[in-house]
Amino acid sequence: MKPIDFQTDPGRYRHWRLEIDGEVAFLVMDVDQAGSLFDGVELKLNSYDLGVDIELNDAVQRLRFEHPEVRAVVIRSGKDNVFCAGANIRMLGKATHGHKVNFCKYTNETRLAIEDACENSGQVYLAAVKGSCAGGGYELALAADHILLVDDRRSSVSLPETPLLGVLPGTGGLSRISDKRKVRRDRADVFCTTEEGVRGAKAVEWRLVDEVVPNSKWAETVAARARELAARSDRPRDAKGITLTPLDRRQNGDAIAYSHVNLDIDRQRGMATLTLRGPANSVPASVAAAHAQGAAFWPLALARELEDAILHLRANEPAIGLVIFRTEGDAQSVLGHDALLGQGDWLMREVRHYVKRVLKRIDVTSRSFIALIEPGTCFAGTLAELVVAADRSLMLIGTREGDNRPAATIMLSEANFGFYPMGNGLTRLQTRFLGDKAAIERLSKKIGTPLEADEADELGLVTGTVESYDWDDELRVMLEERLSFSPDALTGMEANLRFAGPETMETKIFGRLSAWQNWIFQRPNAVGAQGALKLYGSGVQATFDKERV
Amino acid sequence: MKPIDFQTDPGRYRHWRLEIDGEVAFLVMDVDQAGSLFDGVELKLNSYDLGVDIELNDAVQRLRFEHPEVRAVVIRSGKDNVFCAGANIRMLGKATHGHKVNFCKYTNETRLAIEDACENSGQVYLAAVKGSCAGGGYELALAADHILLVDDRRSSVSLPETPLLGVLPGTGGLSRISDKRKVRRDRADVFCTTEEGVRGAKAVEWRLVDEVVPNSKWAETVAARARELAARSDRPRDAKGITLTPLDRRQNGDAIAYSHVNLDIDRQRGMATLTLRGPANSVPASVAAAHAQGAAFWPLALARELEDAILHLRANEPAIGLVIFRTEGDAQSVLGHDALLGQGDWLMREVRHYVKRVLKRIDVTSRSFIALIEPGTCFAGTLAELVVAADRSLMLIGTREGDNRPAATIMLSEANFGFYPMGNGLTRLQTRFLGDKAAIERLSKKIGTPLEADEADELGLVTGTVESYDWDDELRVMLEERLSFSPDALTGMEANLRFAGPETMETKIFGRLSAWQNWIFQRPNAVGAQGALKLYGSGVQATFDKERV
Repeated sequence: MKPIDFQTDPGRYRHWRLEIDGEVAFLVMDVDQAGSLFDGVELKLNSYDLGVDIELNDAVQRLRFEHPEVRAVVIRSGKDNVFCAGANIRMLGKATHGHKVNFCKYTNETRLAIEDACENSGQVYLAAVKGSCAGGGYELALAADHILLVDDRRSSVSLPETPLLGVLPGTGGLSRISDKRKVRRDRADVFCTTEEGVRGAKAVEWRLVDEVVPNSKWAETVAARARELAARSDRPRDAKGITLTPLDRRQNGDAIAYSHVNLDIDRQRGMATLTLRGPANSVPASVAAAHAQGAAFWPLALARELEDAILHLRANEPAIGLVIFRTEGDAQSVLGHDALLGQGDWLMREVRHYVKRVLKRIDVTSRSFIALIEPGTCFAGTLAELVVAADRSLMLIGTREGDNRPAATIMLSEANFGFYPMGNGLTRLQTRFLGDKAAIERLSKKIGTPLEADEADELGLVTGTVESYDWDDELRVMLEERLSFSPDALTGMEANLRFAGPETMETKIFGRLSAWQNWIFQRPNAVGAQGALKLYGSGVQATFDKERV
Repeated sequence: MKPIDFQTDPGRYRHWRLEIDGEVAFLVMDVDQAGSLFDGVELKLNSYDLGVDIELNDAVQRLRFEHPEVRAVVIRSGKDNVFCAGANIRMLGKATHGHKVNFCKYTNETRLAIEDACENSGQVYLAAVKGSCAGGGYELALAADHILLVDDRRSSVSLPETPLLGVLPGTGGLSRISDKRKVRRDRADVFCTTEEGVRGAKAVEWRLVDEVVPNSKWAETVAARARELAARSDRPRDAKGITLTPLDRRQNGDAIAYSHVNLDIDRQRGMATLTLRGPANSVPASVAAAHAQGAAFWPLALARELEDAILHLRANEPAIGLVIFRTEGDAQSVLGHDALLGQGDWLMREVRHYVKRVLKRIDVTSRSFIALIEPGTCFAGTLAELVVAADRSLMLIGTREGDNRPAATIMLSEANFGFYPMGNGLTRLQTRFLGDKAAIERLSKKIGTPLEADEADELGLVTGTVESYDWDDELRVMLEERLSFSPDALTGMEANLRFAGPETMETKIFGRLSAWQNWIFQRPNAVGAQGALKLYGSGVQATFDKERV
């Protein structure tokens, strides 16, 4: 399989059409069956693979940044008789365990990005379901705020994974029917074991869709609902979008250089360094000046590059188990940008939520993250969030001999106290100091103050502080140790320790649902030679080991 | 391996001593290394297997019922130099995947029972940790309300599973350090990757233990703390305990008959029927009369038998994937007992919380449960809880031809509205009607009213209602279908759909942590021929596939 590239643009879409009609956009799924990332896989019936979802994610992202005028988005099918058949089964049968897990993670993030647009961006999604809508197809609809189902005696919604494939609906379906749509548990049980799904009035009664509409009134009802949803939006009517221009990205052997991010892979040790650079230019004088920078506006450019690097690591570099965060740049300039992000402007809001989503990608990335805070680094404001996003951090005390740069500091900004909540609904600082309001209060008084190692340590911001003469040894031992551990145990450990405090639908999806799905994705009953996922479509019935675990 | 028996009593303990000194009990762990359930496994250094935990569970249970005078329980080791080394690794290496998963489930339930005693029974646990306290040993201590660690420069607490064994601490350790003890995430990360653990003042600073005590003051401090905890208790000073007499249990081929419960296994179809019978005697005239019945008091006897049957199914009948709930008896008599349980008496409280714990065992049992409500059944009050504990229910409309019993009814009691909260903190009715207070209100008005099929359906209590002439066919098809599905997919599906709404530390343990552990328990990095769990103690280093998933 070729390396997967997460960058695309509408001019290159093979599977989606983005049609904009004033305040309403139509996201039309029309999968090119010859366009799979996998050789020999045909994406029939609007079934999808990761490549299809990369385009969807791109469209969802562009709608927010490039189209402030769009207040409602209708997801519909470009094919007759089928809305979407879900993830392509042949692809799942061929994919490695690692690819399946990463595929589900990414598609889950895309569904959550749709919900984030509804909730935080005034861009509300409506799923207009005509034709069969099965598995991942229904999970896509579930991400929308409102689901319309045509009442034509054929169209239905279903989650047939358990009866048909011996796996779970892996894109949040179980969590969304129980927690978002509050489908009664026993009905959910019936629904998830009924291959043919549910249609018509029963689908409404069971809360699986919001309304059913006769075929004769379909187009007008979809249009009416879209207008109604649009009317509720707080998006500006007269704003001008900014264009998400292609990333400045250069691959050079095992390194990728972006304008503000470098990814350097140390293949021999199985680790990578992600260096994030602060703003290259001075702080824009106003929000308007920030708008004028477009995609070059520093926090936006940084987020796009960081996201691309993280997704690349996940999909294409599975053997790189540890990532070092480093930063460079001018702390005051970062804080100046943070101040802009805090303004009540639609674009600043978009950037803030986007940085939030990228940081959440880190939270669910199955690699160990370590932040190194040394002289010359710039862990300030938005960049300081990496210290608390990391599994641990190490800070050098004072200066290094022969290095005339000042002692390393951490500097907090208002960004660390609310811009970037985690999936659990808390900020990373709140999660770190769970239930300890005094600790948060203490920290908030330090906004804008450079905190050297001792103070950062006392405030609980760093895991350890180290004298310069011990630094190299301590770091070497720490890295060697971490890299010697079982990657699977680390993945499970990190997935538990990163989410102290409340669980939400989102953390349930990544914690509970995904962990069970990962388990099932390894079980012979699914992926063995006689397993349901392997034999699907072959005409041969799966043979199950009937023992319950 | 022989069938596992979950019944025991202090006279038969091989691994624990229960020493009672007035209001303080000492639970002394002194594992007989020759007493493993597994041939060829030596339970060295107070390491444990399921058999050890069965005794612990029995002791925790008896302390509540037989010893109302005990207000504080000190868990300590009967061996020098070691508190507890955790689950026996050799045993984990030998055990099947299914046994490992069930073992962790049961030990988790026992830890939660300890916490339930602290929280709801005024019987507060203190862990007096002297000597090394590793992995499951520390997880046992974590279940206590207060952890004392001796400061002798050797004794430490640790969770070395990840660095040493390539698995997770499987008995709630990760969830408890993050959510119960609120250990900072980065410190938790260091702690869980440090084989030798943490001791002394640092263990307190990191919140891993509550206090460290010099060896010279050990005995007096433990005694003082136990007295302090005891002083906070609301347990009665002058009450008389009741004896948990041996169960009335007769095995007859594939059937087990208890006094109020029958378990009938249909091995060919891979299913079982659990029949629960209402009270055989009339309702005790008073709480005092209920006390006089002792272990024969109906709700207590029922709970003990149901618990034994469920645990037997889990451990000894893995191929039985589906369980039918049936009931028999007199509804008014059940409601009379429920009214007694609602009284503010220590024993009634114990019974209520015990029934709650048994029902929670059902919630985390990986079998499909179906309640069948037909003429002659008695789904009333506490027994009606089975209707909502089941994954789905089927109710027969009216009567059967040639059967002169009246139409089946469901009857709710106050028990269904608060006696038996699930792990998520909500009642089963609240979970079923998540966020819909009106539905709960409607139901509460029906307390004591027999609800026939149509009304039960309208109120949302049953999944489906069926005419008598369709009953047999509908049921046959439903069962055949369910039994044809992948057991693993059903397990994952049920584990997600059963827990709508909030997550708690408890649901995190069974949902998030256990699912990850189950995944890891299947990975070659843990259980493959070169895996860490397999090679532990052999002197050979594990070889890891370094790819992250």
